[in-house]
Amino acid sequence: MGGDHGPSVTVPAVIEALRRDHELRVILVGRCDVLDPLVAATRNELAARLTVQDAPEIVAMDERPQDALRKKKKSSMRIALDLVKSGQAQACVSAGNTGALMATARFVLKTLPGIDRPAILKRIPAHHGHTVMLDLGANADANPEHLLHFAVMGAVVAQDLHGDERPRVGLLNIGEEDIKGNEVVQQAHKLLGASTLNYIGFVEGTDIFNGDVDVVVTDGFTGNIALKSVEGAANMFYGALRGELTRNWLRKVGLLFSLPALRAFKKIVDPREHNGASMVGLNGVVIKSHGAADAYSFGTALRMGVIEARKGLPTQITELLQAQLASPQLLAIDASSTTVPES
Amino acid sequence: MGGDHGPSVTVPAVIEALRRDHELRVILVGRCDVLDPLVAATRNELAARLTVQDAPEIVAMDERPQDALRKKKKSSMRIALDLVKSGQAQACVSAGNTGALMATARFVLKTLPGIDRPAILKRIPAHHGHTVMLDLGANADANPEHLLHFAVMGAVVAQDLHGDERPRVGLLNIGEEDIKGNEVVQQAHKLLGASTLNYIGFVEGTDIFNGDVDVVVTDGFTGNIALKSVEGAANMFYGALRGELTRNWLRKVGLLFSLPALRAFKKIVDPREHNGASMVGLNGVVIKSHGAADAYSFGTALRMGVIEARKGLPTQITELLQAQLASPQLLAIDASSTTVPES
Repeated sequence: MGGDHGPSVTVPAVIEALRRDHELRVILVGRCDVLDPLVAATRNELAARLTVQDAPEIVAMDERPQDALRKKKKSSMRIALDLVKSGQAQACVSAGNTGALMATARFVLKTLPGIDRPAILKRIPAHHGHTVMLDLGANADANPEHLLHFAVMGAVVAQDLHGDERPRVGLLNIGEEDIKGNEVVQQAHKLLGASTLNYIGFVEGTDIFNGDVDVVVTDGFTGNIALKSVEGAANMFYGALRGELTRNWLRKVGLLFSLPALRAFKKIVDPREHNGASMVGLNGVVIKSHGAADAYSFGTALRMGVIEARKGLPTQITELLQAQLASPQLLAIDASSTTVPES
Repeated sequence: MGGDHGPSVTVPAVIEALRRDHELRVILVGRCDVLDPLVAATRNELAARLTVQDAPEIVAMDERPQDALRKKKKSSMRIALDLVKSGQAQACVSAGNTGALMATARFVLKTLPGIDRPAILKRIPAHHGHTVMLDLGANADANPEHLLHFAVMGAVVAQDLHGDERPRVGLLNIGEEDIKGNEVVQQAHKLLGASTLNYIGFVEGTDIFNGDVDVVVTDGFTGNIALKSVEGAANMFYGALRGELTRNWLRKVGLLFSLPALRAFKKIVDPREHNGASMVGLNGVVIKSHGAADAYSFGTALRMGVIEARKGLPTQITELLQAQLASPQLLAIDASSTTVPES
């Protein structure tokens, strides 16, 4: 029921996903009186793989996460997560309130063993395809160990995404020299250097896009602001380009010839093509779609949930994290780092 | 002598600036044996406004700031700043090592009364023209008072830039709700709310570009990463666009018609058009040009130094800051904020 457009977007996206993926089964969670009429016309072979589960309550987009968690035990969000918890569903995809989804998911699913803080992860379009980046806003701050955990979770996603056994992991900083940055990134730099990950050191904002790194690790404050800055810039750039290309009739003639190029370009910069953030570190697959997603774009988020569920992402993360924690080199650094006072 | 290209870029840029601005006088600081031949051919009326000052030493682009400050007392950077200190020059423009320039400028010029930390400020292209943003990397962290000082400095620059008496000041955060973010932005939010500035509250990364705010305040870690992320994205977007537009002959025909539009577009996204960061909070005007700047782009930074010197930016900042510090409302909040323990 979530998102700015609710079932008018999610239902068509689900029907299209069922049509394309013959192994997929979907439980639509929300108010039956709204959902039943929308799915009534679905063809038989799809209808067999589509169930509606009633959830009488709705979490508002501006509701405080703690209020949603405490007071809305029959919300579509809560019941969808309960279905993942009980094993009736393998992934939850929601376009609802981000904070409420994260708080409810932590409460219902719990975090994976060894993980304190789940993180929000996205695949960002980059020169070599995609860069995996996290945290994008689940936590307003992070300590060095959290950043190590983010690195492990990002590496697992990048392995699945690129099929690369040793994805290059970088820590976002304001310079590439070892002496740069604040105390937290300095400590995390040591932890990551001692891990078994393919850690390449500090990276800068420009590196997110240039193909020199596969996983970019940062705290949720910096990551969220960096990503939203890029979204703002992309919107402005695309608007300026369209404005310039349609300024007079001569340019419009050129535009006719350039349309296929612009469509291909838009596929790279359009956030609809990259919709779907993973909430990683939870004991279950949870995908957050952009609230303003249309059916096409919600479909992108749905496919991501399907992929992560089939790969068994939470299990993979647990295995790689256990391997890190068992590393004697890392334990040594980890113990010594606790003696360094943080500013 | 600074930057990746040295005098082969700075000298032509200076000669062009002298040609365009008949009131301008320039002292070129660097090795005479290199500079003298380059300026020898300058026409008489320009030569009268151009002096060469010998500086035998050069700060390397990768030299540690403290080493440059201690060991290179006859560097072009140091001598240029000495000229500002003694009043022989009204601004210093350098394409050299950023850290060394900031450290040397702080040592030679000192900070303005009431300012602990100078900041790096840029005018970012935005929907309504430009947004002033700081700090972009002078400090790896900032406390709430530093953020208030950054806001004052940004407001003065925005007043000069937009001619707007009451520029809208926003504090960068991961959401616009009052409860969002870490302890530092929460405290700064209170300080800014109690100031006489036109503070509009928290803003997000997207707002940097959408015209809803004139001054965006953040710490140097977040600001540097946000700006470099945008630069990386802009490079990728522009490269992808060019690649798509030249993929086949039909598209190339379209490109012929679209060239003026693309040139106008490039003027918006091209970093050369926006070169020049101001080091604000110092007792003098200091402009940092990008190290890789060409002559055109270095000229943009030069013009910025001229404007700030003619406006008397440091004096304006001091006046607005004193007005803030004299505000009884702010003093009350300021005192109470010290009783709140920071996490």
